[in-house]
Amino acid sequence: MKISHLGIAVKDLASAETIFRKLLGDDNIHHETVADQKVRIASFQLGDAMIELTEPTSPDSPISKFLEKRGEGIHHLAFEVGDVNAELARLKGEGFQLLDEKSRAGSHGMQIAFLHPKSTNGVLVELCQLPSDGSDTSH
Amino acid sequence: MKISHLGIAVKDLASAETIFRKLLGDDNIHHETVADQKVRIASFQLGDAMIELTEPTSPDSPISKFLEKRGEGIHHLAFEVGDVNAELARLKGEGFQLLDEKSRAGSHGMQIAFLHPKSTNGVLVELCQLPSDGSDTSH
Repeated sequence: MKISHLGIAVKDLASAETIFRKLLGDDNIHHETVADQKVRIASFQLGDAMIELTEPTSPDSPISKFLEKRGEGIHHLAFEVGDVNAELARLKGEGFQLLDEKSRAGSHGMQIAFLHPKSTNGVLVELCQLPSDGSDTSH
Repeated sequence: MKISHLGIAVKDLASAETIFRKLLGDDNIHHETVADQKVRIASFQLGDAMIELTEPTSPDSPISKFLEKRGEGIHHLAFEVGDVNAELARLKGEGFQLLDEKSRAGSHGMQIAFLHPKSTNGVLVELCQLPSDGSDTSH
């Protein structure tokens, strides 16, 4: 397993992007709207992992709820796996609590699923599977 | 800049380690006590980044305060830089608020410094510089 990305909840994507451009000294940014999760993202590739700034597009986005409760900050930690549904089955067998019983569409053309932070020391864990042809359909 | 590690605050290192062994399917774990920050850590190497489980060794550890206020969860995001003090000077010039004006001793023999989460969208950012001879003196 490797780290795919780290999701950071932000209120205003444009201003957060300006801050992270300065911090990371990086202008290579990918933009995308993920309808299923009601978010817009701006992601920076750093080595083999990404930083994903995430702004809600609707008050009922999970990110809106997080921002209300906790304010801006790190929202989730995503791991890249070969087969997300096989990994969900393995982790369920190990006693982990799942938020998604089956994978769904995420950013970068990935299939994704979340684990409940209760069973992972307060960390919202996402599992991500790359598109099978290796292409990123989001560009 | 690349991601060095992600620090996760936990109450009990042994039980958190068991959980993350199962989650990551990884038994290659590094243990260390970092006196300066009053923590014990267990870290997992995943690709070119690490997951660092962090337990306080004292009630006045910064991790104890975080656990009281927020509970277990992701505590900080660390980036590897070539020269931590040069990077602090650059970021101060860019308007970032520093928690450390000068670097200090961290885990894995690194020199580290923190930025204030107020200027980085609620994310506690750590900068890390590897030991100059490339060795990890902590083993």
